[in-house]
Amino acid sequence: MEKPQRNWDTKRVQKAQRLAKISNLMTGKYVETNQIITVLEALIAPGDKVVLEGDNQKQASFLSQSLNLVNPKKVNHLHMIMSSISRPEHLDIFERKIASKIDFSYAGAQSVRVSQMIEDGKMKLGDIHTYLELYGRLFIDLIPNVVLVAADKADKAGNLYTGFNTEETPTIVEAAAFKDGIVIVQVNEVVDELPRIDIPAGWVDVVVPADKPYELEALFTRDPQNITELQILMAMMAIKGIYAEHGVQSLNHGIGFNTAAIELLLPTYGASLGLKGKIARNWVLNPHPTIIPAIESGWVESIHSFGGEVGMEKYIAARPDIFFVGQDGTMRSNRVLGQIAGQYAVDMFIGSTLQLDYDGNSSTVTRGRLSGFGGAPNMGHNPGGRRHSTPAWQSLRDQDNALGKGQKLVVQMVETYGANKKPIFVENLDALAVQKQAGLANAPVMIYSEDTTHIVTEEGIAYLYKATSKAQRQAAIAAIGGVTPLGMTSTKESLDQLRHAGIVKLPEDLGIKRSDAKRSLLAAQTIDDLVEWSDGLYEPPMKFRTWS
Amino acid sequence: MEKPQRNWDTKRVQKAQRLAKISNLMTGKYVETNQIITVLEALIAPGDKVVLEGDNQKQASFLSQSLNLVNPKKVNHLHMIMSSISRPEHLDIFERKIASKIDFSYAGAQSVRVSQMIEDGKMKLGDIHTYLELYGRLFIDLIPNVVLVAADKADKAGNLYTGFNTEETPTIVEAAAFKDGIVIVQVNEVVDELPRIDIPAGWVDVVVPADKPYELEALFTRDPQNITELQILMAMMAIKGIYAEHGVQSLNHGIGFNTAAIELLLPTYGASLGLKGKIARNWVLNPHPTIIPAIESGWVESIHSFGGEVGMEKYIAARPDIFFVGQDGTMRSNRVLGQIAGQYAVDMFIGSTLQLDYDGNSSTVTRGRLSGFGGAPNMGHNPGGRRHSTPAWQSLRDQDNALGKGQKLVVQMVETYGANKKPIFVENLDALAVQKQAGLANAPVMIYSEDTTHIVTEEGIAYLYKATSKAQRQAAIAAIGGVTPLGMTSTKESLDQLRHAGIVKLPEDLGIKRSDAKRSLLAAQTIDDLVEWSDGLYEPPMKFRTWS
Repeated sequence: MEKPQRNWDTKRVQKAQRLAKISNLMTGKYVETNQIITVLEALIAPGDKVVLEGDNQKQASFLSQSLNLVNPKKVNHLHMIMSSISRPEHLDIFERKIASKIDFSYAGAQSVRVSQMIEDGKMKLGDIHTYLELYGRLFIDLIPNVVLVAADKADKAGNLYTGFNTEETPTIVEAAAFKDGIVIVQVNEVVDELPRIDIPAGWVDVVVPADKPYELEALFTRDPQNITELQILMAMMAIKGIYAEHGVQSLNHGIGFNTAAIELLLPTYGASLGLKGKIARNWVLNPHPTIIPAIESGWVESIHSFGGEVGMEKYIAARPDIFFVGQDGTMRSNRVLGQIAGQYAVDMFIGSTLQLDYDGNSSTVTRGRLSGFGGAPNMGHNPGGRRHSTPAWQSLRDQDNALGKGQKLVVQMVETYGANKKPIFVENLDALAVQKQAGLANAPVMIYSEDTTHIVTEEGIAYLYKATSKAQRQAAIAAIGGVTPLGMTSTKESLDQLRHAGIVKLPEDLGIKRSDAKRSLLAAQTIDDLVEWSDGLYEPPMKFRTWS
Repeated sequence: MEKPQRNWDTKRVQKAQRLAKISNLMTGKYVETNQIITVLEALIAPGDKVVLEGDNQKQASFLSQSLNLVNPKKVNHLHMIMSSISRPEHLDIFERKIASKIDFSYAGAQSVRVSQMIEDGKMKLGDIHTYLELYGRLFIDLIPNVVLVAADKADKAGNLYTGFNTEETPTIVEAAAFKDGIVIVQVNEVVDELPRIDIPAGWVDVVVPADKPYELEALFTRDPQNITELQILMAMMAIKGIYAEHGVQSLNHGIGFNTAAIELLLPTYGASLGLKGKIARNWVLNPHPTIIPAIESGWVESIHSFGGEVGMEKYIAARPDIFFVGQDGTMRSNRVLGQIAGQYAVDMFIGSTLQLDYDGNSSTVTRGRLSGFGGAPNMGHNPGGRRHSTPAWQSLRDQDNALGKGQKLVVQMVETYGANKKPIFVENLDALAVQKQAGLANAPVMIYSEDTTHIVTEEGIAYLYKATSKAQRQAAIAAIGGVTPLGMTSTKESLDQLRHAGIVKLPEDLGIKRSDAKRSLLAAQTIDDLVEWSDGLYEPPMKFRTWS
């Protein structure tokens, strides 16, 4: 067999050549803050695949701002890979023609602009991913040439401390460090000795002290004072009709006020039902402050976290029995491991959405907003690769099928009219229009109907997994659809049948009085209350304080 | 709200107390080899959850043998968590009543004994898991008290080098290190300076030099001389009828001779079809030696590996453009990241099984053998959390559904009569009997019918994803069932219909002559040929050598 001549270390040679260009700027692995633009121009080549760390909270903001200042004649046509598009310059680099293509997971505050730029042809969309599939591709067909990440501290050798906000940093560094990619890290601080090492120096090529600490936002903090009585009613139904009904032990909560209400009702309403120790013990969750009362009153056994949450540092450090905390006393988060746990190892995912169609498919992508999904679809689907059983999982098993197995509880909790006073239930998801507009291969559905086992509204709970036909499924959704157009199609006869079959339960079926859903039931009604529950360890960011 | 008094660092205190008991035996983090039994008796308490590293290849064999020698009066009722039950002492500890309960993924050579011990009540089964769900539970409801792992080298400080066989070590260490569990590591060698750091010393509590290097087996090496012409025929059909048909770019191969045949046909038969560069470019794969000719002839762009394979070290080190290799020149494998990539980021999983039922459900668990599945179900299912598309994925999309999406190709490749001369197709999987026998909640199915898109036998290919009914699905399997009882139910009329609908293709439909399926088509026909392809860099273990 003829064997072509070939070099097998082209990436390594190329990396060495690039690094040689800045050897005069380097002291050990360090470069000066004010040299970063020169460094980026030397190390990044046109067409490179570049991972720019934009976690949910932590942003490699010094590096993203610096990338936006490079000369587009030198650095262009970059293929950006970002789990989160969070900052203006994440898109400015496309306006400046430094970058041309993007693969991402979540867009958040930049979702309108993302949508517009794709429509205008300023940005070529690779695809929208869930977190795990984006990380997976870093080892398959999106292997990065350069990664730009953020750490809290580095020592002189270049070992990194990511601490509380470890998030995705080790994963994206690994993809580059072991495939002759270049790892560039901005650090808040250089110290002689690190509290602990999260990423070894050998995985790092260039360390640059940032001009100021990386941007970090308390994105998942929900102020209890904004929780409504309608949300409290829904939370009571969820606790009694789902958590208790199925014996849910392990779970992930979304980040909305609905699930914050559940967290704050466990120590009060949950306790009155005698559920303590029986439900909601093991969590995968960003450390929401609203979970504090449930922890303090002994409901929670463990919490693994995808990332940190500003203000929770001291509280977590003082609760190592609950959180994952290092020998240094600081939490270690890990987005990849948290997502795996959230997909495979929990009984339930419960969250909210912006639209549900009449079949129960949901999306947070709405007209003009290409927001992506983050991790929701990882956790909000029935994992076909799961083989172990738990009581909650098993409670959804089809008993008539000899080869049947359990199912993950995937719960959507929505008010029938959303924040914009529009019905949450729509005949066709906006995702279909966005698919056409953005030229996507498939409609950007967040959670598919087939995976959605329960929907909770202020009207009641639809136990969709019990429906035996598509028509019955739709009728069940209509029955809890309130006065939305879909809800108005529901008849008393249909409702009675569905209640009789146990497919729909109203508050009265669950023994819940609507008039009992009072704010006084919340274990904490304000941020101050949360601080008090935490023995003063929770330190809310200024914007959540009513005092100074 | 009343707030109970409570200590929040009980695990940390307990850990410190345990470590204090051996402080007189420790020099830094090191204990002497001959002190290990005393150390284990001091650090492990009755009822502990203990992760014992049994990877596919790498075994913490010194620690497992030592655990089997502790005094059962001191250490008992352990709840063992093991991805692989591989060695006799993994079960001896149950005979000796040191351990009582097990959660695992794969049993391999010990599967008969596992089955027997569960039936005899000597071992209580938690559950059988895929790798990812077992790792996920380490952060949710199976948080370990102690982990026993193996590394190649440690430095004086206790930093670890796991090199080539990193596998699952960092993941299970992380679960303990950040939840006040105790991390005990056996090392082959203590050195002044490590080639690189895979796990920082801060994550490690106790290092013990092993009496001899950890056990390591070349489990995934398939000698080309054992590949049959029937397997070559099937491989030709797979390449033309599946890889080329769907444009499969990224994939995982199982570890059987069937897929080894495909690897060895790419440079010959594949090249003759003009497929080079068009298919099978990005892989997640243990570094099977049979992939060498495809690499050398330029078919392969990248390979990420779950673990290593004995003998491939030097070859991989010389091919950093293909494999994930560190700055030290040695591969870094990572089972968790590889499994994520294999689940979410590849077009196809193709593997073999021991039984298929008439609907297409498969299992490797057969009567008397509780073997488990390892990672096959992670990769061999249609991932409900995937949102990005690729041409192969998209080629299976249901075009009639506006909210439709692509599907992963999950291919089973089997001869109609298995190695034991029994039909591979059975009316009922043995898994159903094993379920009852072992008291499992659900039948241990490896890959479900709903996820299986293609079956290849020596008779032809069934494109199951095209079947529109259960009856048609079963007919398609029967049509390629040969002279098995299921195959004999297929009629000429049914076959003609299925061929006409494109649901079944015979070799002649693919333009393949059965008589062309010759061993001479294999790019390497012996292990020697593989060594030659590798420029002498592949160093086969003794048992695969015909020379000395």
